[in-house]
Amino acid sequence: MENYITLYKETRRKLKAYRYFGWLMGWDQETEAPELAVEYRTKQYQVLAEESYKLQSDPQFMEAIEKLHENLDQLGDQDFKVEIKNAYKDLRIVKKVPKDEFIAYQVLVSQGSQIWAKAKDNNDFSMFEPTLEKIVEFNRKFVKYLETPELKGYDILLDMYEEGFGVQEYDLFFNTLKEELVPFVLEVTKNNRQKFSRRLTKAVYPKDKQKEFSEYLIEVFNYDLKRGVLKESAHPFTSGVSTRDTRITTHYHEDNFTSSIFSTIHEMGHAIYELQNDPKYDDTSLHGGTSLGIHESQSRMYENMIARSMAFWKTHYPKLVELFPKQLKDISVEEFHRFINQAQRSLIRIEADELTYSLHVMVRYELEKQLINGKLKVKDLPNKWKSLMSKYVGKRPTTDKEGVLQDIHWSGGMIGYFPTYALGSAYAAQMYQAMNKEIDIEKEIENNNIKAINEWLRKHVHQFAQSKTPKEILNICTKEDFNPTYYVDYLKNKFSSV
Amino acid sequence: MENYITLYKETRRKLKAYRYFGWLMGWDQETEAPELAVEYRTKQYQVLAEESYKLQSDPQFMEAIEKLHENLDQLGDQDFKVEIKNAYKDLRIVKKVPKDEFIAYQVLVSQGSQIWAKAKDNNDFSMFEPTLEKIVEFNRKFVKYLETPELKGYDILLDMYEEGFGVQEYDLFFNTLKEELVPFVLEVTKNNRQKFSRRLTKAVYPKDKQKEFSEYLIEVFNYDLKRGVLKESAHPFTSGVSTRDTRITTHYHEDNFTSSIFSTIHEMGHAIYELQNDPKYDDTSLHGGTSLGIHESQSRMYENMIARSMAFWKTHYPKLVELFPKQLKDISVEEFHRFINQAQRSLIRIEADELTYSLHVMVRYELEKQLINGKLKVKDLPNKWKSLMSKYVGKRPTTDKEGVLQDIHWSGGMIGYFPTYALGSAYAAQMYQAMNKEIDIEKEIENNNIKAINEWLRKHVHQFAQSKTPKEILNICTKEDFNPTYYVDYLKNKFSSV
Repeated sequence: MENYITLYKETRRKLKAYRYFGWLMGWDQETEAPELAVEYRTKQYQVLAEESYKLQSDPQFMEAIEKLHENLDQLGDQDFKVEIKNAYKDLRIVKKVPKDEFIAYQVLVSQGSQIWAKAKDNNDFSMFEPTLEKIVEFNRKFVKYLETPELKGYDILLDMYEEGFGVQEYDLFFNTLKEELVPFVLEVTKNNRQKFSRRLTKAVYPKDKQKEFSEYLIEVFNYDLKRGVLKESAHPFTSGVSTRDTRITTHYHEDNFTSSIFSTIHEMGHAIYELQNDPKYDDTSLHGGTSLGIHESQSRMYENMIARSMAFWKTHYPKLVELFPKQLKDISVEEFHRFINQAQRSLIRIEADELTYSLHVMVRYELEKQLINGKLKVKDLPNKWKSLMSKYVGKRPTTDKEGVLQDIHWSGGMIGYFPTYALGSAYAAQMYQAMNKEIDIEKEIENNNIKAINEWLRKHVHQFAQSKTPKEILNICTKEDFNPTYYVDYLKNKFSSV
Repeated sequence: MENYITLYKETRRKLKAYRYFGWLMGWDQETEAPELAVEYRTKQYQVLAEESYKLQSDPQFMEAIEKLHENLDQLGDQDFKVEIKNAYKDLRIVKKVPKDEFIAYQVLVSQGSQIWAKAKDNNDFSMFEPTLEKIVEFNRKFVKYLETPELKGYDILLDMYEEGFGVQEYDLFFNTLKEELVPFVLEVTKNNRQKFSRRLTKAVYPKDKQKEFSEYLIEVFNYDLKRGVLKESAHPFTSGVSTRDTRITTHYHEDNFTSSIFSTIHEMGHAIYELQNDPKYDDTSLHGGTSLGIHESQSRMYENMIARSMAFWKTHYPKLVELFPKQLKDISVEEFHRFINQAQRSLIRIEADELTYSLHVMVRYELEKQLINGKLKVKDLPNKWKSLMSKYVGKRPTTDKEGVLQDIHWSGGMIGYFPTYALGSAYAAQMYQAMNKEIDIEKEIENNNIKAINEWLRKHVHQFAQSKTPKEILNICTKEDFNPTYYVDYLKNKFSSV
């Protein structure tokens, strides 16, 4: 048994290094690499994919995992048991998916984002369609390879991003939203064109001042730049590899200054989660967020529940006014608070407001479900997208740039990922309730003491990294199972009063 | 033979990928990575070093190289012959240096720059001394391992950076400088405190305007940002991996605006060299500059011979004045030209002027020679440094920050590297003469047609990448052997008139 453990840990060490190289290449690609570097980089990705695959499919390594899994009880360490369970689950892929197909797919998706970005720039779905065809095609074959009596089709993809959540769970969740939320949203957003000062909507907010405010926010949220980086990229994201290196990006639009504020805070929510993992997991396979849903619950809580609250802006609005004295002259904190909490029918998910956001996600969930079960073809995506948007969000896109081409995810092969975004907001509402029983959240926010919130979340969510499943985390944190009514109640309550 | 070729090329493909990962980690480390990321990154470096070593020392790979080397005549392709010759030469290390020592050293030097940077910040040589001790110690053992009847001691290190140049060649070169240049320099710099407008020496030059001028220079020199990046780092450098990705850094000092100008141009010289390699070498081991000396000849030619000329500023000074209208008001192009061509006794190599520069290098050459042959101990370096500076440059540093701690190189294990800097300037003078016979360089500069110079250098130097030795390149380009008198003549001529 000792030999198996040694072998497992030695291979893990190498795999962690390969993941690090891939992580860094991804970070570089999105933030820095020159345009024409793509071809050469892709060749190196190919070597990395081959070498990683070779390690993962090494018969001795696979045997070690199987033997350790057979003898789980003999492994004293609880964390190590979880690791072996996960590794055993991952073995499915190596055992059942043909190597060449798998590697070819890795290479395909490593190039996908560049192709997608060009298609989006040109507002031309046909430039992206052949790539997306291949990605969907692979995923449909992929779920066939992995099929078991218990888990089939789209469920397999969903479970990879959110363990324990399949079509059954999501259908229940989204049906609640369809029944309870969609009518409310369509009503609230019917004629809600609020009036705001032109200085909020039309003034120019210089980028360097926005950057200064980002730096201020970094202090407020206690995001540690000795263990992080803030950069710019087309689409904000968080990219972490250890509790000593978790980086974020944002973007600045001079005609939409609140976008960078909430993007930066959103990504800090993700980053703080990983930075507050117990460092003992850094060299194991358990570092990071346990699932995308739990990850998103943290970013959404920081962005929406903390940073769009009146308590937050009571304290921080003066700083914003100091940076933009002309633009925000005579604009009260109440008006600003209403401005950042507008609910309206819109087209772009990442710019969508808190109220309508999960309905954007519901569109993607239904499309993915149909793509994977074969009821929808890639070429029909643009139109289907438009009609579902019209139905759930009450607004129909006229271009693909504002429709099916807006998100990067599918270009990187991420199918089954989107639904976790909506789940995250629902988790967040449930967690917030639980936390509020122990600390007075609004008071801490108003006292500029986000540290207290960070610390509560560290104890109840972050420290566990991937050593607990999403369902376990939710139970530790809220002492009950997932319950989406907290979310619906929270939204109805907030958007009836705003 | 076919099998050996296939095996060689397949291993080369992997080694190129590993080099890419290391390259990217280095770039990230110097430009972006958060401070506390060092420990985790070092672990991944260790895996990379082990895996690279494993590939390089694989008995089948070594056998392939040896067999191919035995049958060089049968390899039709001239480039491939050169590759095999080089690979055979590199085998020395794997064959003769104990693996554990070699890997431990790779890890040591991957951490060296961070330790050095702290020591330098604190002006405290003792913080760096133990690391440098280990580095020197390893290099002294290293040359013992590699010793042959033809090549011994310091010669082995020198040859690794500049093939065909050892103590004998360098002694001749530096003796020429000692005899011809040192007396001239000490005379010229004796009482040369020129008077310049206080606006040149004391005004503040805002960083964002300096950045704008960098962007302008990128256009002027035709450095292609689709295949490159310009960033900031403590110490400017060029970092290239293919003809599609060669990046540079610069630094901005608001109280010394010409520093960024010439750093940026210097690094562009390096980058243009590698970007103009024939792309057919990208996937081989022959991509890149053939030697440090030839590399430096390009950066020095762009920086000093092109960009410090009157012809250059006749054309581009108006742009500079446009960006700094207050600071440069009433300052003539002639005064500016004199300002950027001051020769004076100074302490910092990278800020040294063109005239005294190679004498700074001579100091390092003598120190390295003595460190490796055992006549000098690391602990005595700071004082020895001071006395040699006094002797050759006529100025004695009072602190180690301005002395032995100023350069990053030794912290990365680069011993034998410095002398190539001086050699580069001498090569450049010789190449410039040859080029000037075919095109009217000053006229092209004045016509803002650097393209013509780039193209001449592409044809006569850059395209060959590492397929020719430094001596061969010099012969192709100038039709004669190395001759340092061009350099001495050029300097005496320029600095008698400025």
